[in-house]
Parts: sequence; structure tokens; C-alpha cells
Amino acid sequence: MEDSRFLLACRRMPTDRTSVWLMRQAGRYLPEYRALRERYHLLDLCRHPELAAEVTLQPLRRFPLDAAIVFADILWPLAALGIGVSFEAGEGPVVATIRSPHDVNRLPEPDESAFRSTGEAIRLVRRELPRSVAVIGFAGAPFTVASYLLEGGSSRTYLATKRFLLRHRAAWERLLDRLTDLTVRYLALQVSSGADAVQLFDSWAGALPPDLYRSAVLPWTRRIVRQVRALGVPVIVFSTGTSGFLDLVAETEADVIGVDWRIDLGRAWQAIGDRAIQGNLDPAWLLAPREELRKAVREILARAGGRPGHIFNLGHGILPETEPDAVAVLIDEVHAWSARTQAE
Amino acid sequence: MEDSRFLLACRRMPTDRTSVWLMRQAGRYLPEYRALRERYHLLDLCRHPELAAEVTLQPLRRFPLDAAIVFADILWPLAALGIGVSFEAGEGPVVATIRSPHDVNRLPEPDESAFRSTGEAIRLVRRELPRSVAVIGFAGAPFTVASYLLEGGSSRTYLATKRFLLRHRAAWERLLDRLTDLTVRYLALQVSSGADAVQLFDSWAGALPPDLYRSAVLPWTRRIVRQVRALGVPVIVFSTGTSGFLDLVAETEADVIGVDWRIDLGRAWQAIGDRAIQGNLDPAWLLAPREELRKAVREILARAGGRPGHIFNLGHGILPETEPDAVAVLIDEVHAWSARTQAE
Repeated sequence: MEDSRFLLACRRMPTDRTSVWLMRQAGRYLPEYRALRERYHLLDLCRHPELAAEVTLQPLRRFPLDAAIVFADILWPLAALGIGVSFEAGEGPVVATIRSPHDVNRLPEPDESAFRSTGEAIRLVRRELPRSVAVIGFAGAPFTVASYLLEGGSSRTYLATKRFLLRHRAAWERLLDRLTDLTVRYLALQVSSGADAVQLFDSWAGALPPDLYRSAVLPWTRRIVRQVRALGVPVIVFSTGTSGFLDLVAETEADVIGVDWRIDLGRAWQAIGDRAIQGNLDPAWLLAPREELRKAVREILARAGGRPGHIFNLGHGILPETEPDAVAVLIDEVHAWSARTQAE
Repeated sequence: MEDSRFLLACRRMPTDRTSVWLMRQAGRYLPEYRALRERYHLLDLCRHPELAAEVTLQPLRRFPLDAAIVFADILWPLAALGIGVSFEAGEGPVVATIRSPHDVNRLPEPDESAFRSTGEAIRLVRRELPRSVAVIGFAGAPFTVASYLLEGGSSRTYLATKRFLLRHRAAWERLLDRLTDLTVRYLALQVSSGADAVQLFDSWAGALPPDLYRSAVLPWTRRIVRQVRALGVPVIVFSTGTSGFLDLVAETEADVIGVDWRIDLGRAWQAIGDRAIQGNLDPAWLLAPREELRKAVREILARAGGRPGHIFNLGHGILPETEPDAVAVLIDEVHAWSARTQAE
């Protein structure tokens, strides 16, 4: 059984060309996704494995991507703690808010049946795709999920989160313990269902100063990384806004560090040391004229310098305003240019 | 005439203790500011020099701050281009949107009478304060002001800004030319009115990848810095989210680089090289228990290591939720601890 290009890159092994997948490659920029969303609620897509699998596979039918990432909402596993999520039209997610240490103490034992649909979706997707395409499972990292719980949704300042963390440190740690436990179970289920790798989204970690990241976030993320790696699959830790402390993000012991576009890829790779790196095109570039887009892709590949262990991706999710054709151009440029330069 | 502690720090000269001021030190966290805002609209405070001066001086009556910063809205000078700004309750600013290159071409010649009130406010403030307290003038940097014009207000993704920049590069440069010219005039007026130093707020520069910052933003900011420095006052360039390219921010040639809290102060200072540095406490720390706040202040001072050229500040503006007493604690800790350690 041949390993996929993507999995080789996770282990920093040489490949014939640079592998590429894109965060939110299954999403609103695709007409076929929007068509499904006209018939089904977002949470229905998470709830029904065949729908989640269908959405996961949509971009793979269009583009020669090196990996599929299972479709689910980042807050979906909270259902196992009895926490419902809703979506107001045009707004981000709305969740029940944790306001006090008491609210943390009252969280129930997780009911795993609530998130089994994601495992089943992975099983369906893995069956459909050739081994050359990796299937990535994912979950939110504890800080980012905690921030939704404490803010009650998205935020610009993360003030409720920081206030709780600064004033109720013991309760904060209990909350992260609970989310860590939940996340390990959720990811173990995904791995046993066929996920070839796992990405932890710590999208909002960059809201914190490095000292607080080190003491109040990193140990929990690392605990998850260790437990998932022990299952035999590589782990990607992705964050944004962390250009100033990527060395700490690398201390999560993830195989691959996903970086945003706010730092030169070469510099970021230097900061994380002996790890694979994933990134880091600004998603806005997909709205640029096509020749400019190709040029921006080549600049990132040039910074990776053909070293094994670079997985091409955006610095965050594809914007809904993106034309699917631009995605085709990006993938073509990654594969064609890296094949050419790696042959030299 | 003795130079203030703050101005000595801008030139990296030794001082008896670390100087400190706080972004948005005049603002909603102060009951006396809220009382004024019940009677006057924000734009009235900008329009009437005696009101702007009063707001500027409010925190100076409470706290032994080393500098005052003139009160104005970042978009106030746009009035000189005939661009009105409005504020919806609870929302950020709303401005007329630039949608096309044609809109850029139609911008009129600036009418300086529209922003003279800021100069007059500086004159009043300078007269009130002893020379030991510096008076800082300010303006938005061209990228950040352009982003408001292109988005029509605040943004999370800066998509309209990036799209315009990527698709209409020549018009983007013309827009920045116009904003640069306007900003130089506005700041020259502030300097001739008595401002001892000037801060340029490029608050949203961190939305960009380093390559775009270098080619599409930096040259214009540097042009302003050079022209204002030629008037004989030091310039601070402040940005957030730029931890990955602070060396480029230092290429603006500002005397002082203001940094946010997403990077260790010592590391940031290394990145910017031979410049003074301003920062960098997370404003959320002002909501922490007082002993924790004092400890966080000391950690930043320890990282500055008593080297001349550190100006203590937050990494962004004071949050409205802050208790004024916490600000007093912060200032006391900066002055007391730095006096003690610098005497050693």
C-alpha cells in the first residue's frame, strides 16, 4: 500500500511534487455546496453521514487535491456535552455560554453517540477515495472551542475568554481538561473510522500573549497531540495570529504546523524547526487576476525551497467570494511548478 | 527647557524611570468621559477644540501619565476630502465607500480648514500641561485609513481592501498618495500647534502578508515618517498583528515602533533593531486581579531589561470595561518598579 503524497510530506519524506489541500475546500464558494445548503441546514449536514461525506467529496470531484477533510462544524462535538449550537442567518455560531466556574462543574459526562456521525462520514469518504488521497479528520483545539463557549459565539476581542482565564484559573484548567478529554475521544473515533491524519484548529490562539499561550493553552493541546499520535497518525496544529510565538506552537509536538499568511514561509519554518509546515497563501489572493495568483503561489513554493515537508495550503479558509476556477489555477500551479523544480 | 521622560525615551536616552501612557487613555472607561458623551456626539468632541482638549486632559488629572495624546477620531481628517463619518449606536465608524478607481480620481483637493480643530486642541492642551508631560499628535496611517474607506467601516477580513489592492494596483497607489499628502498636512498642523511627538496608527496592517506590506504599504508610511521627522519631532508607528514582519515595520524609519501583545517584548525589540519600542501589555490584563496585573507589568519591564528606549504602553487601546483604579495600579507599578531597578 503506497502512502499518499500528503502523508509522506507530514513525515518530511521526499515527494514527486508538493501536496496541496485547502481549508474550507468544501464550502460556500462551490455552487454544488450552496445547492445542498438550500435543502439542508448546516447541522443536518453534520448529522447525516451520507450528507457530510457528499460535501466532503464535492471538491475532490472538481480538483486533483491531495487530501479530503471531513465535513463537520468545529462545535459539533459539543453536542456530546449536551451543548447545542445554532446559526443565525449570516452570523457565526451561537452556543450556550459558560459564565462561571459553576457552569464548568455542571458539564455532564460526554455522550459519544452524539458525534458518531463524523466517524461514519469518514468511513464513507475513505471507501470512495483512492489511497493516493489522504482523508483528514479534525477538531477544534481546546482554547478555540473554549472561546466559543465563553463568548457565546465569535468575537473580536475574546474579552470574556480572557477575563475568565485571568480570574478563574482553576476553573479554566478544568474546562480545558474536559474539552481535551472530549477532543481525544472525538479524534480517536475519527482515526478508528479511517482518518489518515488529524488537524487541530486553534484558529484564535493568536488572541493571546505568548506567556498565556505557554501556561494556559499549550499543555492541553500537547496532551491531545500526544494521544492522537499514539494512535499512529500524524497531527497538524493550525493557528492564526501566532507569528510571534510559532516556536511555542511547535512545542505542541505536532508533526505539521499550519501557519497563516502574516509571516514569510521561510521564516516560519525556521521558527518551528524540525517539523513539517503547512501554508500559507492569503485566501484573498484567490480573488486576484490569475497571473498574479500564479506568481504568489510560486513565491511561497520558492520559499519552501523544495525541502521535503511542505504542504501547500491557504493561511485560513477559502473565502465564499472565491470562484472555483481560481482554486483550479492554484492547485495546477502548485503541482506543475513543484514537479518542475523538484525534478531539477 | 528640560525634555520629558517620554521624549528622552523616544531618542533612547536614559531616564530615571520608564515612561508610560496608554492608548485610549481618554475614553469610555472614564466616568467623566462618559458624562461628556451623554451631552455631546463623538464628532462634536472632535469639532470643538475646547471639548477635545478637555477629553485629552481627563486622564492626566487622575493619573501621573508621561504623555497626553490629543483626542480625535482616526477618520476625522477625512472631512478635509469631503468624506463624512457617522457612528451608529454601538457600532464602529461608517464612512462613504470607495468602490472603483473612478472614486479615487474624484477625491477633491483637501480643505485644511476641516481639521484645524485638532491643532487648536493641541495648543490648548500644551498650554495646560507642564513640559514634563509630552503632548502626542496622531493620525491613521494610509493603509488603515484606506481600509475604512474601502470597507465602509470596520472589517474582520479586509476583503474589499485586499480585492481593490490586488485588482487595481495603480488606483490603490493613487489613493495612498492622496492619503499620504492629507496625513502629512494634518500632522504638520499638529506639530506647528505644539505636538512634541506624533503617532501613526497602522492598526490593521497585520491583515496583510509581509510581501504586500512591503510593496503596497511601507513606502507611503515611510514617506509620512520622513516628512514629519524633518519637522523635528519623533514619530511612533503602531500596528497590530505584525509580529511576523516587525523588521519591515521598522523600515518605516520611525523613531519608536509600537507593538501589540502577541510577541515577547524582548524578541520584538530584537526584530526592530536600533529603535525605541513601545508596548506591550494585553489590555485584557487590566481586568485581572491587581496582584496578577502588577506581575504582568513587571514581566514586560524585565524583558525591556532597563535599556533606554522602552515606553510602556498597552498592545492596543484600553478596553471600555476597564476600572480606572486598575489603570492607576498599572502606572504605579511601571514607575515604581522601573525606578527601583534602574537605580540598582
